[in-house]
Amino acid sequence: MKLSHVHGFLALGVQVAFFILFCAFVRYHPDAHARYHPLVNGSELENELDHYKSDDPWIHSKSYPMFQDVHVMIFIGFGFLMMFLKRYGLSAVGLNFMIAALCLQWAILVNGFFHLKKGTIVVDLNAMLGADFTAAAVLISFGVLLGKTTPTQLIVLALMEIPLFAVNEVIGRSYFGAIDMGDSMFVHVFGAYFGLAVSLMLHRRDASTEKEGSSYQSDLFAMIGTVFLWLYWPSFNAGAAPGDDQHRGIINTYISLAACCLTTFALSTLLDKHKKFDMVHVQNSTLAGGVAVGTAADLMIHPWGAALIGILAALVSVCGYMFLTPLLASRLRIHDTCGVHNLHGLPGILAAIIGAVAAGVASEASYGLSLYEIFPARAPLEDSLELQKLQEVLPDLEGGSGISGTSQALYQLLALLVTLVIAIAGGIVTGIVLRLKPLALLKTEELYEDEKWWIMEAEEDEGHKGSVTIPMADNGAR
Amino acid sequence: MKLSHVHGFLALGVQVAFFILFCAFVRYHPDAHARYHPLVNGSELENELDHYKSDDPWIHSKSYPMFQDVHVMIFIGFGFLMMFLKRYGLSAVGLNFMIAALCLQWAILVNGFFHLKKGTIVVDLNAMLGADFTAAAVLISFGVLLGKTTPTQLIVLALMEIPLFAVNEVIGRSYFGAIDMGDSMFVHVFGAYFGLAVSLMLHRRDASTEKEGSSYQSDLFAMIGTVFLWLYWPSFNAGAAPGDDQHRGIINTYISLAACCLTTFALSTLLDKHKKFDMVHVQNSTLAGGVAVGTAADLMIHPWGAALIGILAALVSVCGYMFLTPLLASRLRIHDTCGVHNLHGLPGILAAIIGAVAAGVASEASYGLSLYEIFPARAPLEDSLELQKLQEVLPDLEGGSGISGTSQALYQLLALLVTLVIAIAGGIVTGIVLRLKPLALLKTEELYEDEKWWIMEAEEDEGHKGSVTIPMADNGAR
Amino acid sequence: MKLSHVHGFLALGVQVAFFILFCAFVRYHPDAHARYHPLVNGSELENELDHYKSDDPWIHSKSYPMFQDVHVMIFIGFGFLMMFLKRYGLSAVGLNFMIAALCLQWAILVNGFFHLKKGTIVVDLNAMLGADFTAAAVLISFGVLLGKTTPTQLIVLALMEIPLFAVNEVIGRSYFGAIDMGDSMFVHVFGAYFGLAVSLMLHRRDASTEKEGSSYQSDLFAMIGTVFLWLYWPSFNAGAAPGDDQHRGIINTYISLAACCLTTFALSTLLDKHKKFDMVHVQNSTLAGGVAVGTAADLMIHPWGAALIGILAALVSVCGYMFLTPLLASRLRIHDTCGVHNLHGLPGILAAIIGAVAAGVASEASYGLSLYEIFPARAPLEDSLELQKLQEVLPDLEGGSGISGTSQALYQLLALLVTLVIAIAGGIVTGIVLRLKPLALLKTEELYEDEKWWIMEAEEDEGHKGSVTIPMADNGAR
Repeated sequence: MKLSHVHGFLALGVQVAFFILFCAFVRYHPDAHARYHPLVNGSELENELDHYKSDDPWIHSKSYPMFQDVHVMIFIGFGFLMMFLKRYGLSAVGLNFMIAALCLQWAILVNGFFHLKKGTIVVDLNAMLGADFTAAAVLISFGVLLGKTTPTQLIVLALMEIPLFAVNEVIGRSYFGAIDMGDSMFVHVFGAYFGLAVSLMLHRRDASTEKEGSSYQSDLFAMIGTVFLWLYWPSFNAGAAPGDDQHRGIINTYISLAACCLTTFALSTLLDKHKKFDMVHVQNSTLAGGVAVGTAADLMIHPWGAALIGILAALVSVCGYMFLTPLLASRLRIHDTCGVHNLHGLPGILAAIIGAVAAGVASEASYGLSLYEIFPARAPLEDSLELQKLQEVLPDLEGGSGISGTSQALYQLLALLVTLVIAIAGGIVTGIVLRLKPLALLKTEELYEDEKWWIMEAEEDEGHKGSVTIPMADNGAR
Repeated sequence: MKLSHVHGFLALGVQVAFFILFCAFVRYHPDAHARYHPLVNGSELENELDHYKSDDPWIHSKSYPMFQDVHVMIFIGFGFLMMFLKRYGLSAVGLNFMIAALCLQWAILVNGFFHLKKGTIVVDLNAMLGADFTAAAVLISFGVLLGKTTPTQLIVLALMEIPLFAVNEVIGRSYFGAIDMGDSMFVHVFGAYFGLAVSLMLHRRDASTEKEGSSYQSDLFAMIGTVFLWLYWPSFNAGAAPGDDQHRGIINTYISLAACCLTTFALSTLLDKHKKFDMVHVQNSTLAGGVAVGTAADLMIHPWGAALIGILAALVSVCGYMFLTPLLASRLRIHDTCGVHNLHGLPGILAAIIGAVAAGVASEASYGLSLYEIFPARAPLEDSLELQKLQEVLPDLEGGSGISGTSQALYQLLALLVTLVIAIAGGIVTGIVLRLKPLALLKTEELYEDEKWWIMEAEEDEGHKGSVTIPMADNGAR
Repeated sequence: MKLSHVHGFLALGVQVAFFILFCAFVRYHPDAHARYHPLVNGSELENELDHYKSDDPWIHSKSYPMFQDVHVMIFIGFGFLMMFLKRYGLSAVGLNFMIAALCLQWAILVNGFFHLKKGTIVVDLNAMLGADFTAAAVLISFGVLLGKTTPTQLIVLALMEIPLFAVNEVIGRSYFGAIDMGDSMFVHVFGAYFGLAVSLMLHRRDASTEKEGSSYQSDLFAMIGTVFLWLYWPSFNAGAAPGDDQHRGIINTYISLAACCLTTFALSTLLDKHKKFDMVHVQNSTLAGGVAVGTAADLMIHPWGAALIGILAALVSVCGYMFLTPLLASRLRIHDTCGVHNLHGLPGILAAIIGAVAAGVASEASYGLSLYEIFPARAPLEDSLELQKLQEVLPDLEGGSGISGTSQALYQLLALLVTLVIAIAGGIVTGIVLRLKPLALLKTEELYEDEKWWIMEAEEDEGHKGSVTIPMADNGAR
């Protein structure tokens, strides 16, 4: 068996394994089960998906349209944004498609494993939304490695990253009580540093080639991804929040993104020696405001806070592209194709710090009783008098740990720290695996090159290869 | 009058005729009528469109966001997917646009004719959703014929196909009581075999030309169509379902598509002699899971069943592209430009069979009382004691035919059979009409060629034709 | 400081100014405030965003999914539609992105200033939707000037246009009681004639260059914009309407657009000397039906009325492109790059007239009591007996001016007139400012040219400029 065949067998084997695991463990959530009939159960169309509510407190309420927004971000957003490389468009959108489809299934299994219900994994709208979020982490890591890995390596990476992702999220959310509505720590920071650590392990001197750049057309395609990501980011940051938290999450993300976009354009031209705009910044740094506001998206950061976050995110991101990415590549031997560090890494750390500060200053004065729902760890202890008093107004409130705002802030930073440690350690281990001989195959000329992986027109009719220079749009193929 | 002018007059005439028919027959549904005021009618904002409910049992509840998802599939999904031909992009998205806009109006009229209310055709969100579904059938037929027909032929085809489509659906749903939530039989099988029959009638020896292939750029554009179809397919399969049926339809379609996508990538590379991925499969076969799960989308097929269906659909579709399409063209003289048979035809038949099996094994044990809502023909006879007992819990339940699961399964297969017969017979008749001399115009060099139908830049300024080789749009690449 | 640097400093300064204004004035709407807790406030998840209702009568109910549809129109729709120029794609989508992000923030401030609540500007979903609408007006003006302005000019234009936009809307809606559900007057007419007046002031003899045309690829990219605009236009026209008004607005817009699309294709081919379709019409005139039905979108114009409006809009728009645009440029010295006059200008005036007629004939016979909600000025005077009688059924109804249908029609026309006056006068003043020396910079060869504003690959590695002339993507131009 030639090694270049491996990914076909591997993908098929993985899919069959998923099928077997689905047979063994995965069931419909009661809300999606035919035996659940609203009239029989005394409710009235309660679980319609466009505004899905459940008795299950784990689920709160979810909106199918917001799920679809996130879904578009994963497949159109990431897939087309990564099309910016001039000879790697088919791979960008194609491999993104394959890997994300794999991640959705693997994430349902792995995430579900951490939230077993009577020994089974249940699927519902919430599980699908969670699977899409999880896929985002893997695709962020993919962005670091874009053009430098084989499909086989990507499949192995996805299989290894998702369990680590799930463990880290459970530690952060359940053990530390950290909140992170837009998943800036658990998705963005995790995915970015995991990918950077893998990249360190896969270091090669020839990673920067002439093909690493964009073309006019590829830059236009990439903008499809950028703009859809930018538009639907509020749904990403607030899709899992209830009521006014969701409303606030939408507003904060909207304002932060708008401020970030304008600031990015300003800085891009100001920092260029010819005072021109740089598509790299426009495609990426405009989105940093969505990442940077993520952890605090549902907190009372106020509209001005959101605007400030957007400005800072643009500053961090544009400067990262200008000064840090070259340094990372030359000094630390970490090559980062998409500049993920500047879009997800640094802005994610910024988000975590902002989240810690916002959590630290949160008080009943500004949040009212919602404080204890937004920060469950700050709710009084079970069976305490304070809790009983609160339960008179909020009957569903559960007992927490009664911690202070400062403690909450420290737990937030602890969650960031643990995320960094697990992501980097996990990335190093994964990178070592990906370096194993059967997986590491690419020659220099195969970097950032579709032809290695895709049937191209020219190959089909080699006969009149000469004549195909009628240069139709297909320049990418030679 | 030169024959190539015909389509302009025809389109205008059709539009005027539609207007006259709208004047004569089409009215707002009461829910969209200003005289319907929620407070006057004792309800409270009940018919807001983002979660539209109606007292009309025919309508159940519909969600505007899901309608919009389907709308995107019809115009972006089909339009851009068909852009894969290297010289036919303007026609693909343009003619798709024109034909679909025609179909929406014609479908409102024709579908409405079969559901007259007091002699008038009523429009509401439901009618719009139905019109979009109907347009899908015509666009599927268009896919078979892509690049080989004139606009005139397409208009005639749409006008002839939709009444047959509507008759077939009424026979299947109302007379046989067949269920088909994702319209795999009534839209996909019907549209595919109708188009294939037309193609047989329009057979020409020179249908395969050098222009039939894709280019690098056209493949990227086509992926916009593919990915949006893939993302919004759950809304297509479940948009018309209520409550937990909808939730289940979303989950089943999501899982089936994910499994189908990964399997398609695996098979595509495994079956290629150079072990490369084939964009044809990625663009089309990844979607077969949505078709194949369609009929049973809202049934209790379980997550593992959905995964299995996705795997099977990919297998059928990829193998169809590799082995069957060439055979169809050479042996049966049926040329199929988009390979519609492998995306809509075979997976649609698979869906119908799966639907029959799932209907055959459906029981009150697994479905609870929902069984009689999902399969109305299985509800006890009007005025029977069993019905009265059920109505104590489900007051709106209407009497059915009291048939068994096996009978339901047979009716499902009968609906498939009748769909195939009407589609193929109708397609043959339509094809004979399309062969009439005034309509059949294309020369070999006009196949798959935009220049025949679109004003191209070069024509405008023939003067400096030579000079325009300043390689346009490609300035980014030097 | 070289003048070409100005836009970077200007954009940064504007963003900082916005931040300061946000600090001083902008607060969360109570519905988005953490202290607003549904249980504490006696409601139950009332303000979830997928179906947002508020006690605030100014807000009625808004749907987040419809807001997102509009959001997509602004950034994908306008951004990609304007990509049709062959060498200006980066600027089209990029500058659209920058300007729109600026407009969102500026519109929140300016619109909010006219609806102050206790001295503060409040943001909520409604404010965001309004900001997107406002951005649309500026982007329409941008379309007239596409390729002929510097970023600096665009920023100044946006800053000047939005206050005038807001004043005009307040005059029209609050003082004249004019209704305009789809904003055909307040957005489309205003934006178009404002832009045309600016264009008159910026007249230059060399505005028509060889680069003003499209290429095959750029036409395909533009179709992404067209189709998304076409699909989501019902959300634009009805997103701010309640209940059955919204339902009717969706239906009317859907039908008008379908009729307009088919008619556009028919006229485009009939009026061409070679009987070919013209992408300019397909990209633009297909959308005129959405504009023309805008003012009357929620009125009882009936499905046939909507179809008729669509047909008329296509006629006006296609003929405008064929006959009027060249005249405007040659006789009136108004150059209109995108033909905005034919898509937004004339169809907007058509919409205003249709709106006036529909308002004139509106009666309680056809509207029931909804008449007084749709036309608040027609409600009886405060404290009148008639009002009290109506309030028995509609307790929230407020007193109006008790005007007749004819008066309402006249006020509609007055609003149109004032819109035209403010737009043209404002545009002239703005144009005079934009002509000031520091802002007006473009040489002939810099018109419609990305290279002036964007870092292009070629600049980076001038070394092998010669070798890559394999002419990419430009086949469409032969």
